[in-house]
Amino acid sequence: MTTSTTSLVDELRAALPDGQLVDDPQIAESYRHDEAEWAPYGTPLAVVRARSTADVQAVVQACLRHRVPLVTRGAGTGLSGGANAVEGCVVLSTEQMTAVLEVDPVERLCVVQPGVVNDDLRAHVAGFGLWYPPDPASSPWSTIGGNVATNAGGLCCVKYGVTRDFVLGMEVVTGTGEVVRLGRRTAKGVAGYDLTGLMVGSEGTLGVVTEVTLRLRPARLPEHTVAGYFDSVVAAGDAVRAVGAAGLTPSALELVDRHCLAAVDAWKNMGLSTEAQVVLLGRTDTPGAAGDAEADALLACFESAGATWAARSTDQEEADALFAARRLAYPALERLGPVLTEDVCVPIAAVPSVLGRIEEIAAEHDVLIANIAHAGDGNLHPLIITPPGDEPARARAMLAFDEIIVAALAAGGTVTGEHGVGLLKRPGLADEVGPAVMAMQRAVKQALDPAGILNPGKVV
Amino acid sequence: MTTSTTSLVDELRAALPDGQLVDDPQIAESYRHDEAEWAPYGTPLAVVRARSTADVQAVVQACLRHRVPLVTRGAGTGLSGGANAVEGCVVLSTEQMTAVLEVDPVERLCVVQPGVVNDDLRAHVAGFGLWYPPDPASSPWSTIGGNVATNAGGLCCVKYGVTRDFVLGMEVVTGTGEVVRLGRRTAKGVAGYDLTGLMVGSEGTLGVVTEVTLRLRPARLPEHTVAGYFDSVVAAGDAVRAVGAAGLTPSALELVDRHCLAAVDAWKNMGLSTEAQVVLLGRTDTPGAAGDAEADALLACFESAGATWAARSTDQEEADALFAARRLAYPALERLGPVLTEDVCVPIAAVPSVLGRIEEIAAEHDVLIANIAHAGDGNLHPLIITPPGDEPARARAMLAFDEIIVAALAAGGTVTGEHGVGLLKRPGLADEVGPAVMAMQRAVKQALDPAGILNPGKVV
Repeated sequence: MTTSTTSLVDELRAALPDGQLVDDPQIAESYRHDEAEWAPYGTPLAVVRARSTADVQAVVQACLRHRVPLVTRGAGTGLSGGANAVEGCVVLSTEQMTAVLEVDPVERLCVVQPGVVNDDLRAHVAGFGLWYPPDPASSPWSTIGGNVATNAGGLCCVKYGVTRDFVLGMEVVTGTGEVVRLGRRTAKGVAGYDLTGLMVGSEGTLGVVTEVTLRLRPARLPEHTVAGYFDSVVAAGDAVRAVGAAGLTPSALELVDRHCLAAVDAWKNMGLSTEAQVVLLGRTDTPGAAGDAEADALLACFESAGATWAARSTDQEEADALFAARRLAYPALERLGPVLTEDVCVPIAAVPSVLGRIEEIAAEHDVLIANIAHAGDGNLHPLIITPPGDEPARARAMLAFDEIIVAALAAGGTVTGEHGVGLLKRPGLADEVGPAVMAMQRAVKQALDPAGILNPGKVV
Repeated sequence: MTTSTTSLVDELRAALPDGQLVDDPQIAESYRHDEAEWAPYGTPLAVVRARSTADVQAVVQACLRHRVPLVTRGAGTGLSGGANAVEGCVVLSTEQMTAVLEVDPVERLCVVQPGVVNDDLRAHVAGFGLWYPPDPASSPWSTIGGNVATNAGGLCCVKYGVTRDFVLGMEVVTGTGEVVRLGRRTAKGVAGYDLTGLMVGSEGTLGVVTEVTLRLRPARLPEHTVAGYFDSVVAAGDAVRAVGAAGLTPSALELVDRHCLAAVDAWKNMGLSTEAQVVLLGRTDTPGAAGDAEADALLACFESAGATWAARSTDQEEADALFAARRLAYPALERLGPVLTEDVCVPIAAVPSVLGRIEEIAAEHDVLIANIAHAGDGNLHPLIITPPGDEPARARAMLAFDEIIVAALAAGGTVTGEHGVGLLKRPGLADEVGPAVMAMQRAVKQALDPAGILNPGKVV
């Protein structure tokens, strides 16, 4: 350990209130990486659990003085390695900054610290008759700060948009160690460049978010649920395309295949494994008779695409169980072995063909690929599962991962719909946008993080 | 004229197809400024009306070689001076790039050149059963390129959002003269920093937009209209606050005062001047019985806030005439004399008090201030009108303009809701965001326009 780094830890200990610098090596170990099983990670020099903006600023300024990398993280549920420790970095967790500072029902906004858990925020604002739509499958654990860092999506996005659509403003500790406010509290605003939107999805590489002002919506009405069984992912994909072509905007349109349902059953004994190869779950929250008509229209799309069985759910518990299974699919599959998670997003019309291509890729490389998808917006999550300790299978999984990216780009898609670039999608990003845009991205990074300390090696 | 600049014009003439370099001095004169009556403008060295991306790239590269400023513009309907010529610049108009390149009903997107007029696009996509929501009052004349440059808003924003919410991707000629594609065609995507969102609202200072991919929505249902008369702008503001507090999301909520109605009547003889001091126009496009209930709830808000008369319109023609008057207010007032247009946006709860303060400011400075407002999102457009040639009145108008900005910022608002910073709001922007954020804005500008040729002196 060099003198310089020794003094960084000493400086942090002196600058921060007791208990924020993590001394326990076992606890520190748990902060080394996120949920991206396949992405590399290093050993941090120090781990800090901040409680205030002042704490964060002290950490950023110390890192600046010592030119030490700073990796900020929330709950660590990320799936691209964006929060993985860089060797010799400081890991800064904002998970203990959990205050909901304000909820304003007239302006329909709230102001929160970054460590508030997504589901906790949703429950809190529900008490005001309000709703925060972005609902990543990680919502019981993931924090708003992490959601902002990755521009998290979720089930509702097909109708209501992603995290960026709900971030009005934020407080940020900048790459030069200053505390600034970006954005606004008003419904509209064009005062200068959209630095708020730029920060969203930037994975801690352009600044550290210490407070977020979020737009809210009025509480929504109960949804109608439509479920369909299909014999193949391609047939289910045809139904998704039919929904788009019919001009429908469901409030959710999710695909879950039999691998996922079986894994959930094996874990939670929910009795979902069925004769279906693929289940498609549609919802609509349009009010009144129009909502009824929309649910019927969804059903007609499922049937016209060849559903082996399809019905509107009349039982809310049953409907909720199906969506709960969707949310549990990822942790259920993780119990079977390391999971390499894809996150491509393709045009709606390409959903059937790309799902078909993914099946071919699984067969070609002899790997198990389970499929969940926010199918309504073309956001596919092929999950490549390998037996624990099977290195040849891991190598084959990596090849399959790369080929899925090729297939998505060939279909006019993007390498990441909602999980972010992190480490896993850096090569894919360069393939997608090309050298001139990569140069623009790097120029923006250099402009806002001139010392290059903020989560270096991620995104760009 | 220096050798360098002579050869720039020669170079442009050689590089561009016949007719694109404007030789007629009278025509060139019309390209010197936008509709911001009060903002300064210079004399351009050359005016180019481009027809293709290649033309734009040739102009940018020529300006780079000669280090000559480039001011890009659409129809010139801007209200902040963003398109005003810088002395000795090249003015580049994209108004002749009018192709709608693609409309895709399944993906609900279209790809257009920047010169397509907003209303023309809306009419075109309506033929596919689709709808492009952003509807600035300038929609019969303003272009999508200009809308993107200013992140234009409009009447529908209170429910459907602003231009940025509908821009999925774009082709841009960069500050280094390259042609790049930003963004995506998919519903979601987080592949790198949001350079697309950064370009929207950047007023031609970070790149020249040569093609835009826009998100569309299904055609919407007919709206219910509710009209209310009020004795004061403050009472009308109370009704706006009541709508927010009731959890309603109208599809439009517009305020028009008697000065505006009288000016429209004087011009178009529509017979709108009434006993009302202020008219509030609300609309809802929620389907079926829920829409009926929402219209009734709007009406109840109007009445509870003290409307002297309020009713749901049963006559679509009458309702459309009221909204047409709203759209005609600005050109109607311009007939009376130079108009200095404000564009502050304040929290909903502050609408009544800020409208009251604007009345005081008008009295204090002895100027006529007419009010139109996208009231539902707190976006106020006080229009300060002075008699033609009355220089002392112009000076008083400037003082009133500055004081409205002070009032909006004190209420937690922003200096510009939808017109952009341009020239008129540069001091206000610095007041609003402070020196650290201004430094970040300038760093981004420097990163993407290292030669400093793109619309210098605007925004930052």
